[in-house]
Amino acid sequence: MTYKPTQSALDTVHRLHCIGCDDRIPGQDAAEDFRCRSCGSLFEVEYPQLLPPGEGPEKSQGLQTNVGDMKNRWLNRRSSNSPLDRSGVWRFRELLPFLDYERYVVTLEEGNTPLYRLPRSAESLGLENLFAKHQGMNPTGSFKDTGMTAALSVAHQRGFNWVACASTGNTSAAMAAYAARAGMRALVLIPEGKVAWGKLAQSLDYGAITCQLKTDFDGCVAVLAELVRRAPVYLLNSVNPYRLEGQKTPAMEIAEAMNWQVPDHIVVPGGNLANNSALGKGFAELLALGFIDRLPRISVIQAEGANPLFISMSQYDGKKIEPVRAETRATAIRIGNPASWQKAVKVLQETGGWCEQVSEQEIALAKAEIGAEGIGCEPASAVTLAGLKKLVAQGRVQRQATVVLVLTGHALKDPEYTIDLHRGNLLTAEEKAIMQRGQRKALEFLTHAPLVIDPSVEAVMHILDSAVRA
Amino acid sequence: MTYKPTQSALDTVHRLHCIGCDDRIPGQDAAEDFRCRSCGSLFEVEYPQLLPPGEGPEKSQGLQTNVGDMKNRWLNRRSSNSPLDRSGVWRFRELLPFLDYERYVVTLEEGNTPLYRLPRSAESLGLENLFAKHQGMNPTGSFKDTGMTAALSVAHQRGFNWVACASTGNTSAAMAAYAARAGMRALVLIPEGKVAWGKLAQSLDYGAITCQLKTDFDGCVAVLAELVRRAPVYLLNSVNPYRLEGQKTPAMEIAEAMNWQVPDHIVVPGGNLANNSALGKGFAELLALGFIDRLPRISVIQAEGANPLFISMSQYDGKKIEPVRAETRATAIRIGNPASWQKAVKVLQETGGWCEQVSEQEIALAKAEIGAEGIGCEPASAVTLAGLKKLVAQGRVQRQATVVLVLTGHALKDPEYTIDLHRGNLLTAEEKAIMQRGQRKALEFLTHAPLVIDPSVEAVMHILDSAVRA
Repeated sequence: MTYKPTQSALDTVHRLHCIGCDDRIPGQDAAEDFRCRSCGSLFEVEYPQLLPPGEGPEKSQGLQTNVGDMKNRWLNRRSSNSPLDRSGVWRFRELLPFLDYERYVVTLEEGNTPLYRLPRSAESLGLENLFAKHQGMNPTGSFKDTGMTAALSVAHQRGFNWVACASTGNTSAAMAAYAARAGMRALVLIPEGKVAWGKLAQSLDYGAITCQLKTDFDGCVAVLAELVRRAPVYLLNSVNPYRLEGQKTPAMEIAEAMNWQVPDHIVVPGGNLANNSALGKGFAELLALGFIDRLPRISVIQAEGANPLFISMSQYDGKKIEPVRAETRATAIRIGNPASWQKAVKVLQETGGWCEQVSEQEIALAKAEIGAEGIGCEPASAVTLAGLKKLVAQGRVQRQATVVLVLTGHALKDPEYTIDLHRGNLLTAEEKAIMQRGQRKALEFLTHAPLVIDPSVEAVMHILDSAVRA
Repeated sequence: MTYKPTQSALDTVHRLHCIGCDDRIPGQDAAEDFRCRSCGSLFEVEYPQLLPPGEGPEKSQGLQTNVGDMKNRWLNRRSSNSPLDRSGVWRFRELLPFLDYERYVVTLEEGNTPLYRLPRSAESLGLENLFAKHQGMNPTGSFKDTGMTAALSVAHQRGFNWVACASTGNTSAAMAAYAARAGMRALVLIPEGKVAWGKLAQSLDYGAITCQLKTDFDGCVAVLAELVRRAPVYLLNSVNPYRLEGQKTPAMEIAEAMNWQVPDHIVVPGGNLANNSALGKGFAELLALGFIDRLPRISVIQAEGANPLFISMSQYDGKKIEPVRAETRATAIRIGNPASWQKAVKVLQETGGWCEQVSEQEIALAKAEIGAEGIGCEPASAVTLAGLKKLVAQGRVQRQATVVLVLTGHALKDPEYTIDLHRGNLLTAEEKAIMQRGQRKALEFLTHAPLVIDPSVEAVMHILDSAVRA
């Protein structure tokens, strides 16, 4: 294997800041496993010329133009035909100055995802302005693409031929696609016997070498951490801080779509917790540079069966985290020991966000409700609406608040869940009985499993009439 | 059921033209099944003020501005935050003047899909400029969304509460999503026992009433044709000519992305044949209005097991079509009796396109090759690359030609196919043996099914070394 690390002048424009011991190191000096050599914590990317630590917009010198010009430049790039400009990550490249992007960006034209209104959910919650930012509309069907274009481009610039991750789902799909796009090779490690074939199809499709290890997920992570120390393979799990630089760009897109009036509240699903960390970083940078005048509240919703952050916040004030044995049908957030928990706690505290947990039934009904708006998402995305319902019921979210739910994955990521849901398999016995009696008022967003009928107009019209009366 | 048909001034701006007997009728006079009452043929939408039949651009009076201004207007809408402008269909609304779009458009921000280069496939074919227009990046994962926003908006304007289609795949997913978005109800008819659960999950997700009829697909179509005559239900199969008006807009997007220099050759999959019909109409209108100076050649590729157009063109010069019993794993084009065959023949003849057929093995290898470019698609989309290989080998496509393959569906539409492919189940015994011996030169785009190994760095490094040496 050839391994030709390159060093770039850009390594002096950015540096890595350890969130545990406050150490600061050049980007190229990071350990292969992206853990701080002193304290083992994660790093975040800093731009000392753009945003000197602890200083406000008046001290910032990095953007060689004013904020209004920059907003126009970002907007106008949407009309460009160049792939770099058409990317919803790289059109904000002035805020990602760690790459020679003309030479090394690997893009599938990710980002620029829709911000949909949810009129019916808004009405039932009594809210005036409820939106869904649909990150599942990215090329491989999840929000991971925005982070992957950033971190894999770094691997490309540094001369790696191989990239790797431990994952059974969205991360491996995104990594495999971007690696193929770059002509690089990808290695996916998964625990044996816990293979979700549907989700794995994507990494096979893009030609990734996929190994099932006779261990659990944590065992895969351990093997990978040692592998990257011994072989020239670049680690792309979300401990890689460049992933979060791409994942911060929906903050710019949301602010831009609202004419730079930030929403009051953003609600994200909580799994490995890189997502709210990245959005929090994005909004904080926009505030420091003077693009916006306040931060949105950023809340995190977890499934009851995979709730380590909820427990940390409610029992230990975010000071420590205890891994849980994760179990939920919302597989994308089935994570018991989230890597980015410290970053996530910081964002919760700095923005005044809340952490809530929701049950499997609450997730299922919220998923059907989002579908009834004409918007498909994977179950993990639906925790946002389920959680918002709780926050409204608790009086924490007011009627006039503008709220954005971040949907993280496409409905086609998990069609089995949808079918189980509409067959009533994810409901309580009581809910299922209500559904079977056809009382649509109680469960109005659920259809029934396909009805088998005679091939006659009369039979079909009978179904229609029943549906109209229901 | 309430049924409040509305009539609009726009019904005089457009009219329907029967492609069989040349009859012309107002839009609101179409029969419920969209067949000509005189001859039973299909209609296409005409705009007599915009494009008087048989007259060139110098006679056109409909666009109240010049071509250059219009190009800029369309481009600039990409930077707008209004959903209407962000739609890749409705930003070209001057060419779809049949709707009061401010009031009635139902959009999920479809279109504006990527035009990817395929550098490795180009190199192996000896072509200089090969692109993929990826219509699978639409909101529900297929090109059907562009047509559905157009036709379902017409249903909305005409006051229908219910829409319906016979489909087991992409059409029903798109219809259900747009109907939900509009707050309308959707009815899907499918043949019993031939249910592809994965594809159906989407229509359930969006709350469509889904009936399995104890008959085959043609039986469903017959029931539906009678149903729409007896009940106020709007038909959204591709016999509906407004579907094609939305599906013509990728022609504008392709031309715009190439700075209005049209490619030499566009290659589309051939199933029900509305797709090449719509693209042909789009390019013809651009030519007549003076936006472009020539037509691209538009070719159609069918699977060998579902090849009625190929037989029609090669044996009957396109003058008649004989239905076939369709069988192919490329389910989106598993159609033996295509509705739009006459329109498709016209486009083939007017643009000088070819019709080819490809085998299941050729589809499978082409799908893996597209995946290795970092681009996922459903198997039906891969017929385009497989067919292009044949056209190049036949000497019909020259090295310097600019070629665009239209990919119609997302990889997540059919993950089972991908897994079968990479396990070797879709290959000949010989191909499979080559793959099992690890001779990547012969089948370099195929990975192997996941390898089960010990959880040790040594085991993983052994796999890496094998992959590097292969």
